[in-house]
Amino acid sequence: MSQVYAARRTRLRERCNAGGSAAALVSRPANVRYLAGAAPRGAVLLLGKTEDLLICSTPPDDRPADGRPDDALPVRTLPGPGGDAAVAAAGLAAAQGAESLATEDHHLTVVRHRAMRSVAPRLRLSDLGQAVEQLRVVKDEEEISCLRIGAEIADQALGELLESILVGRTERHLALELERRLVDHGADGPAFPTSVGTGPNSGRRGHRPTDRRVEEGDFLSVCLGATYRGYRCEIGRTFVIGTSPADWQIELYDLVFAAQRAGREALVPGAACRDVDRAARQALDSAGYAEHLPGLTGHGVGLEIDEDPQLAPAAMGKLDACVPVTVEPGVHLPGRGGVRIDDTLVVRPEADGGPELLTITTKELLAL
Amino acid sequence: MSQVYAARRTRLRERCNAGGSAAALVSRPANVRYLAGAAPRGAVLLLGKTEDLLICSTPPDDRPADGRPDDALPVRTLPGPGGDAAVAAAGLAAAQGAESLATEDHHLTVVRHRAMRSVAPRLRLSDLGQAVEQLRVVKDEEEISCLRIGAEIADQALGELLESILVGRTERHLALELERRLVDHGADGPAFPTSVGTGPNSGRRGHRPTDRRVEEGDFLSVCLGATYRGYRCEIGRTFVIGTSPADWQIELYDLVFAAQRAGREALVPGAACRDVDRAARQALDSAGYAEHLPGLTGHGVGLEIDEDPQLAPAAMGKLDACVPVTVEPGVHLPGRGGVRIDDTLVVRPEADGGPELLTITTKELLAL
Repeated sequence: MSQVYAARRTRLRERCNAGGSAAALVSRPANVRYLAGAAPRGAVLLLGKTEDLLICSTPPDDRPADGRPDDALPVRTLPGPGGDAAVAAAGLAAAQGAESLATEDHHLTVVRHRAMRSVAPRLRLSDLGQAVEQLRVVKDEEEISCLRIGAEIADQALGELLESILVGRTERHLALELERRLVDHGADGPAFPTSVGTGPNSGRRGHRPTDRRVEEGDFLSVCLGATYRGYRCEIGRTFVIGTSPADWQIELYDLVFAAQRAGREALVPGAACRDVDRAARQALDSAGYAEHLPGLTGHGVGLEIDEDPQLAPAAMGKLDACVPVTVEPGVHLPGRGGVRIDDTLVVRPEADGGPELLTITTKELLAL
Repeated sequence: MSQVYAARRTRLRERCNAGGSAAALVSRPANVRYLAGAAPRGAVLLLGKTEDLLICSTPPDDRPADGRPDDALPVRTLPGPGGDAAVAAAGLAAAQGAESLATEDHHLTVVRHRAMRSVAPRLRLSDLGQAVEQLRVVKDEEEISCLRIGAEIADQALGELLESILVGRTERHLALELERRLVDHGADGPAFPTSVGTGPNSGRRGHRPTDRRVEEGDFLSVCLGATYRGYRCEIGRTFVIGTSPADWQIELYDLVFAAQRAGREALVPGAACRDVDRAARQALDSAGYAEHLPGLTGHGVGLEIDEDPQLAPAAMGKLDACVPVTVEPGVHLPGRGGVRIDDTLVVRPEADGGPELLTITTKELLAL
């Protein structure tokens, strides 16, 4: 793996140099992990003029639960407690003779930035922007393999839940049980807080589980994901409780199902992100649900659960091959509930069989 | 409750005005919640020249899982998606005629701060510093009552775990079971990731549960806490597995127990934070464990799990009455394991009976 991290750092260094910066400081944890193999708490990565360093404010854990730093990367630990690795990095960059340092201004706080300026007043600080986030968009097969395993774990956890008795149990309990099953099956942990919505809460994006109990006739919507070796996937499904769904439930489900399929089918390399969003949104819009739709119908996943690209009406940019995204349209009708269907897929060229579906739990409307 | 929030905002406004700022922008979520009753995702609180406003980037949830905004506080929602409430607040402050705005520079990113300057170029931005964090240090009885209930919940969850069979179960499973029990007993959720360490992992501060199974002869250390109405408490205990603890285990336990008691007894209004730390540290230091000790032996708790004050060798300041803190010395011997004992207490004057212990699970060395 060491060469992978070194190659990623080389790509970032080339970008920085092209932008006129001799050195770069990466502070956002997911970005540190991407380039260094691990992100101990408070650690930053300095791509220095003469040497790269992982700078830690406390000694890195000898048995880290989430990744091991690249062996080829020297680690420097701050001497005393309470030190700020970013501030130390500014001093080191200046000591290495760098005149400029590009920093992640969307992550650094004003206070840290000010302290960096004061420790190295002659160092010119510029904005690295989202350069690392951009590098992270297209995944290699190793990364996709982690997402694939995470998706299998989520599918298993969800499958087991569906075999148990649901009526009478609360949203909170179902969410906790799903999270336990994720860990049972080998996840590092949940990829994000598991969402379980019943009855009027069903179909709400990011709904936080309450003490409401599952009742006959409810829609039940579930959204969960596993983190595996740092990579986070997502699956969402909606079920109906009881043997005979109401007509409005079947209608709404079919509509969201068709919208989600249209979004999935629009995932081809070169497609504009907004066109994928439009494909998923169109059927729902024309059925009169425009105001009940979320602001986006999908997003990238990886070391964070919500990454670029965004699939939204105003999104810029196009999809590349090997970009994993969610497709997750949904409709929530206040007071009644709703439907969400959410998959994680990898964009693949048609010659390779088109989009690769990672979350394979059935999308038929199951009556449980 | 509305008067409570209004009174807190008045105190902050007085501080700001004394510091020469007509308006203040609070962005750190726990601070927003403290002053506004709730902190919807992305929301900021503007203490304006003419009006206070809670500014939300999306409509606030009609059924928030964690707190309801103060009814007396007007809410303004940004028109489009993707807007930044802090940037909007800068524009509103300027429109209200404020010349200066104090911001939380330890929370705002450089990019947000820059965008605020550009939307309101004539507004002078100054640093509010940790003014709200300082207001939060001393708790009112309502807040302490939330912590007390949270501590009861954590005690219950821990007590139930101890009645079950432990040998053969993994750290991860025990941690998940504790978290489920916290929710069973009415917690909003865990106050922080539950830590369970067995054998060589026991006694490590913040240890992340692994797949190691509990074995006969192990130390088992557990640290958990409940969030109740937003307030977070903490309890840590160490047990021994099997009927006959080894001599080194009994010795080490007694030592940490004595250190923890010394720390607890040092909790009086007016005590210097560093003296409390020294009280807890001294016995361990002189027994030769100086290098195995953590950087701090306690910290404040409240809306966040790690608040001011810090109980550490270089800590400044003194304790006041009605400040809840943890006392949590521990020793971890690499390769062997160790002991941590952690309570949440409220500093109270001696006339009121001295420190109030919130986490009441026994601290005898239990052999399970």
